[in-house]
Amino acid sequence: MESKKIRIGNAVTEYHFNASLSKLQLVADRKYSVIITDENLYDSYKKKLKGWNTIVVKPGEEFKVQQTADTIVDTLAEMEADRKTTLIGFGGGVITDLTGYVGATYMRGIRTGFIPTSLLAMVDASIGGKNGIDVGLYKNLVGTIRQPAFLFFDVSLLQSLPESEWQNGFAEIIKHSCIKDAPMFRELAEHDLAYYRGRKNAIAALVRRNALLKTKVVQRDETEQGERKLLNFGHTLGHALENQFELSHGQAVSIGMTYAAHLSSSLLGFRQTEKVVSLISSYGLPTYASFDRTKVFDVLKHDKKRERDTIHYILLDRIGKGVVHTLPLDQVKTIIEQL
Amino acid sequence: MESKKIRIGNAVTEYHFNASLSKLQLVADRKYSVIITDENLYDSYKKKLKGWNTIVVKPGEEFKVQQTADTIVDTLAEMEADRKTTLIGFGGGVITDLTGYVGATYMRGIRTGFIPTSLLAMVDASIGGKNGIDVGLYKNLVGTIRQPAFLFFDVSLLQSLPESEWQNGFAEIIKHSCIKDAPMFRELAEHDLAYYRGRKNAIAALVRRNALLKTKVVQRDETEQGERKLLNFGHTLGHALENQFELSHGQAVSIGMTYAAHLSSSLLGFRQTEKVVSLISSYGLPTYASFDRTKVFDVLKHDKKRERDTIHYILLDRIGKGVVHTLPLDQVKTIIEQL
Repeated sequence: MESKKIRIGNAVTEYHFNASLSKLQLVADRKYSVIITDENLYDSYKKKLKGWNTIVVKPGEEFKVQQTADTIVDTLAEMEADRKTTLIGFGGGVITDLTGYVGATYMRGIRTGFIPTSLLAMVDASIGGKNGIDVGLYKNLVGTIRQPAFLFFDVSLLQSLPESEWQNGFAEIIKHSCIKDAPMFRELAEHDLAYYRGRKNAIAALVRRNALLKTKVVQRDETEQGERKLLNFGHTLGHALENQFELSHGQAVSIGMTYAAHLSSSLLGFRQTEKVVSLISSYGLPTYASFDRTKVFDVLKHDKKRERDTIHYILLDRIGKGVVHTLPLDQVKTIIEQL
Repeated sequence: MESKKIRIGNAVTEYHFNASLSKLQLVADRKYSVIITDENLYDSYKKKLKGWNTIVVKPGEEFKVQQTADTIVDTLAEMEADRKTTLIGFGGGVITDLTGYVGATYMRGIRTGFIPTSLLAMVDASIGGKNGIDVGLYKNLVGTIRQPAFLFFDVSLLQSLPESEWQNGFAEIIKHSCIKDAPMFRELAEHDLAYYRGRKNAIAALVRRNALLKTKVVQRDETEQGERKLLNFGHTLGHALENQFELSHGQAVSIGMTYAAHLSSSLLGFRQTEKVVSLISSYGLPTYASFDRTKVFDVLKHDKKRERDTIHYILLDRIGKGVVHTLPLDQVKTIIEQL
């Protein structure tokens, strides 16, 4: 286990790379911790979670809502959890978002750490302190930004994940490479999903690289005034699509990145659209989709990235260099109609 | 209007003393603001709130719950409130707590200011960034600490308050004098409620003095690691009593302060218990009460001030000097049984 402390704003997060679930008691006291997880994970890891206090919720994004948070709070109160309790989110992005939200608000904030179990959560969702719940159609409409006390990376948890979950994670890894890391883009282009799935060291290194890449961006701009917005590459349209179709987050973001690359070429003269589209494709992710433009625009209008009559759209200057572009809502509407 | 900016942690709060509701547009843009208030206040100030976007909730502590927060969030989404929206809590502590909570979590935090309308809210509840909702019997079990963007003090709003509301505020003013300000304790002892009710300048000065006193404590210890705990003087037992009886917050705190003064004399040799009790009484507040000790202890066990098997109890060294005392839960139980 490689442990390092990283300061973000006023908080310090302990990163534990190459960790193993069986060593969890090194970072959290069993007696004073409560693990939040979902039914599927609980069934799979029952043995390893033995002896830990657990709150088990239903799996899936449709339960990332206030009502689930309410139930967790009620259970914590029953358990007599107090300000010295550590809350541990054991799961994918839904669980880390929910746990982070409850941990930030229960007794006005208790110690909260994450054990991401999906590739997406390891390289993205568990990092940076954003947490929250969905309200109706609006993803993460309610939440806070609060850094976790620790992150515990055990890549052996990825072994049992289905192909689609690996693809989901790679969508965010490709995103990172597009906006910030051209050498990683080239590395990704040289390999494929099967390569990483079969090599524990390779995936551990890739997880570490992406976790630290995102961390650096968040360190420089925790509250998303500038640079952090880059992480929304592919997410503006992506979120709107995800709401409307039965798309996974990674699939929706992949389509979002494809359109953002095209937009980059028409607005900024970006010339590597084909390379981006082909990398996305080579990891089994979708690139184009037909959708109801009016509906998508309606959801976009409610995007948190909107500010009055403009929206921040993330474009690419070149591979490895994302830029924040401010577009009037009207223009976004026209663009969407022409897509 | 006297305006001053005060930094607390990373945030800056604008304090507007001697303000007037009719000048609200000087601190918030009518078009991009939403005022949260309750039915009673809305009825009383309909005219003055004309032209402002408002969300009106039911009055009373029983509505300071997640469900009300959910309704406010839904309404904000319908109104297309975004990250540039200013949320304004216009009301007593229930409204400022609720508004602060929604403002801290809607879109992960939007600009939020308060116009306290009760004396209690002016000298205490609106200051220091604590917000939250009640969960079952537990007051403020869920919430955050986040400083408001502005505080707008218009003491003319106090004119229509009933006597009991004035008493409520004076309980916290007396608390401040006990833990931090002996000269104010003497000033309070020289006057009475009628004196302050009849003199706008005197109450404006008292509000200012108390708002700044509390602010100073919070500045030095925003997250309640030490000094801020002093503000809980009278509140540990107070909160437990408030839950169990039909007591106002001020009444419950007054009884709490009386018992804490007695505890101070038996544990620390504090000799001014009678002075404290007599000041509380002279402002029409209760001092002694009979209550179900087992029930009260049960609620105390869930107090946020509890840490594992100890509880922080605030005692007085002398008038003007509160101290934090750590007591084992067992001892608290014995003390309560002997009260």
